[in-house]
Amino acid sequence: MRQESEWPQWFDPADDRLARAVWSRLAEPGDGTAVQFVQEYGAAEALRVLIEAGPRPRPAPARHWLVRLPAADPRRDLAWLERYDGRLLIPGDPEWPGRLDDLGVRQPFCLWVRGCLNVADAAEQSVAMVGARACTEYGERVATDLALGLADRRYAVVSGAAYGIDAAAHRAALSAAGPTVAVLASGVDRPYPTGNQQLISRIAAEGSLISEMPPGCAPTRWRFLHRNRLIAALTQVTVVVEAAWRSGASVTAREAAELSRPVAAVPGPVTSAASAGCHRLLREGAVCVTDAAEVVELIAPAGEQLRASPAVPRADHDGLPPIDVRVLDAVPLRRPASIGRLALVAGLAEPEVTASLGRLELIGLIRREGDGWLKAARRQ
Amino acid sequence: MRQESEWPQWFDPADDRLARAVWSRLAEPGDGTAVQFVQEYGAAEALRVLIEAGPRPRPAPARHWLVRLPAADPRRDLAWLERYDGRLLIPGDPEWPGRLDDLGVRQPFCLWVRGCLNVADAAEQSVAMVGARACTEYGERVATDLALGLADRRYAVVSGAAYGIDAAAHRAALSAAGPTVAVLASGVDRPYPTGNQQLISRIAAEGSLISEMPPGCAPTRWRFLHRNRLIAALTQVTVVVEAAWRSGASVTAREAAELSRPVAAVPGPVTSAASAGCHRLLREGAVCVTDAAEVVELIAPAGEQLRASPAVPRADHDGLPPIDVRVLDAVPLRRPASIGRLALVAGLAEPEVTASLGRLELIGLIRREGDGWLKAARRQ
Repeated sequence: MRQESEWPQWFDPADDRLARAVWSRLAEPGDGTAVQFVQEYGAAEALRVLIEAGPRPRPAPARHWLVRLPAADPRRDLAWLERYDGRLLIPGDPEWPGRLDDLGVRQPFCLWVRGCLNVADAAEQSVAMVGARACTEYGERVATDLALGLADRRYAVVSGAAYGIDAAAHRAALSAAGPTVAVLASGVDRPYPTGNQQLISRIAAEGSLISEMPPGCAPTRWRFLHRNRLIAALTQVTVVVEAAWRSGASVTAREAAELSRPVAAVPGPVTSAASAGCHRLLREGAVCVTDAAEVVELIAPAGEQLRASPAVPRADHDGLPPIDVRVLDAVPLRRPASIGRLALVAGLAEPEVTASLGRLELIGLIRREGDGWLKAARRQ
Repeated sequence: MRQESEWPQWFDPADDRLARAVWSRLAEPGDGTAVQFVQEYGAAEALRVLIEAGPRPRPAPARHWLVRLPAADPRRDLAWLERYDGRLLIPGDPEWPGRLDDLGVRQPFCLWVRGCLNVADAAEQSVAMVGARACTEYGERVATDLALGLADRRYAVVSGAAYGIDAAAHRAALSAAGPTVAVLASGVDRPYPTGNQQLISRIAAEGSLISEMPPGCAPTRWRFLHRNRLIAALTQVTVVVEAAWRSGASVTAREAAELSRPVAAVPGPVTSAASAGCHRLLREGAVCVTDAAEVVELIAPAGEQLRASPAVPRADHDGLPPIDVRVLDAVPLRRPASIGRLALVAGLAEPEVTASLGRLELIGLIRREGDGWLKAARRQ
C-alpha cells in the first residue's frame, strides 16, 4: 500500500470530475471493466483504490490502467482545454446527454467539449449521418440535401468530421445555420483529419466538438472503432448515406441497432460499390430513406414533426424575412465587409442591403466596424 | 327459357374446355362473380344456365356476360389459335400452372398459349421481373444483369413484354437461352406494343406467350391492370427493377404481396424519379436486391444458394484479438518504438505487449528493428 506522500499531487478524493478526467486517460474507450469499477466505487474512490493497490492490483486489467497513471495530470489537461474555451462534461451535469447512459458499461467517463452548442440540447433532437470517406458525387449531394433538410427542421446533425459523407453533412448543417456536433476519435485540440481542420474549427465555433479522449490524444484505429458507439448513442436515429460493403458507417449502424435506435440507409445504384454497404443494411432491416422528411418520420410521432421545435436553441436567422437571412449569411465573422461587398455576396441591390443591415443591427445580430459590418458575438 | 334450337351452334354441354374458352370472352379479367358461378356449376353447365336464363338472368352481372354471347365462337377462336401453333390450357391440364389457383375467384378461366415452353414447368421455378416502360439506362442495365443471372440459374423470367424493363428482361433471358414467359393483356395473336413485335415473336418461338384473353382481343387499361395479377401469381417472387412513384409494376408487387409471395425491389439513386416506386416498395417492406443471387435467396430453401460475401480485401486488423489491435495501433510506421513506449501508448502492461508483439510479428504485420518495433510494409 502506498503512502499518501506517494499519491499524485493532483489527486483529490472528493473530486469526481477530476477523477473522471483521469479515467478517460487511463482506460481506452469501451473498457467495460474500468467503467464497471468506476460505477461501483465512484470515480475518485475507484482511483484511490487503484493507486493504493500497488503494482499488482485487482481486477487484473487494472495493470493496464496503471501504465498511464504516472503521466496523468488532469489539472494540466483542464487548463489546456480552457485555452480552447472547452469544458468537461460528466454524467449528472445538466449538459450531459442522458442518451449516453444507454451504453451501460460502454459509456464514456466524460466528454471533452469545445463549442457553443449545448450538447444535451443538441442530442435531444438529433440524427447521426455517417458514411464513406471515399464517397461519390452522388453521396455527397444526397448527404448535403439530407443535412440541409434536417437543419431546416432543427435536428442536430451528428457525425465524425471525416472526409466524404461526414464532412458534407457537417458543412450543409453549418451552411443552414443548423446545430451540428462532431464526435472525434482524437482529443478535441487535435483536429483529425488535418485536411478538415478548417471545417472542424468552424464546428468548434458554431456547433460543438466532442471526444471521450483527453486533449492531446491521437486517433487510433481502436478509438475510431469505439467512437462510432458514441455517434450512435448520442442520436435518435442513424442514417448511413454511402458505405462500402464493410465500413465504419456500418459499425455505427450496428451500434445504433444494438441500442434499439432506428437505422436508416440511403439507397444508391446497385452498380456503385459506395452503396453496397447501404444495400446490405437495407437487406438486414434498415429503413430505406430518400429525404429528410423520411428520416424525421422515424423519430417524430406521426404528425408531430410539424410542431415548432423545442429543445434546440433558436438560430439567429429564425423568423427573419428572406432578404435579411441572405444578408446575414453574407456578413462575415471577423473582417468587416462593406455594403458593396455584401450586396455582391448576397446577390441583392445596395439599398436593400442597407435597409436590411439596419434591421439586423437593431436586433443585435450584426455590428458596424469602421465602414464595414461584422456579425455580432454569438448569443448563448 | 330458350329452345335448344336457339342455342349457339358450338355449344356442347359436355365440353368444359370449350366453355372456358367462351367464358374468357364473355367476362372481363378479374370478374369474381363469373368465376364463382363457373366454379359452382362447372364451366359448361354455368354456360347452359346463362343461355337458358334469357335476357334477365341471375346473378345480375350475368347481363354483362350475355352482351358478348352472340358473337362468341370458341371453335373459330381455337382454329385461329392453331394457326399460331397455340394451345388452350384449363385448370387440371398437366401444363396448367397450379400456382394460379392461389388467385381464388380472381383466377383466369383459361390460358391462351403460344410457344414451346411448358408453362407449368416454367412457373415451377420462376421470377417476375417488372418495371417502368420509361426506364433509364441504369434500369435497363440492371434488368439485363438480373435476367442473365436468373437465366444462368434456370429460373424462368416472367414479364409483360412492355417497353423498358420488361423488354430488357425478356431479351437478356433469351440471349442466355433461358426460359422466358410474356404475359399479354391482349390476345396472343396481337403482340402489343407493336414496337416489341419482333421481341414478342421471338418469345413465342423460344419461350412462351400467354394471355387470359382470347385471340383478337385488344389490350385495354383494365386488362393491363389485371394482367399484373397473373404475372405475380405465376411466379415465385416479384422483382421490381425501376418504377415511378405510381406504376403498374407496383401493382404487380402488391398483387404478389397479397398472394404472400416475396416482393423485391432494386434500389437506385434517390435522385432518380424512375426509382421512386422501388424506394417506396422498400419502405413498405419489399426486400432490397442488388443481383440475381439475392433474388434467388428469397426462393431457394435456406442453405441451397449460400454464397460468399463479395470479395472485399481484408484489413490488417481483421480478426485480431482486441489487445493486438491496440498494440498494432501503437506500433509506428517509421521510427521504431520500444516495448515500454508501446505499453504507454497502448495503455497495456509490458508483458501483454510483448506477447502481442510476438503474435503480430508471426503474421507479418510488424517487424523488429534494433530494440524497437515498426509496422511491416503494407501487404496489398
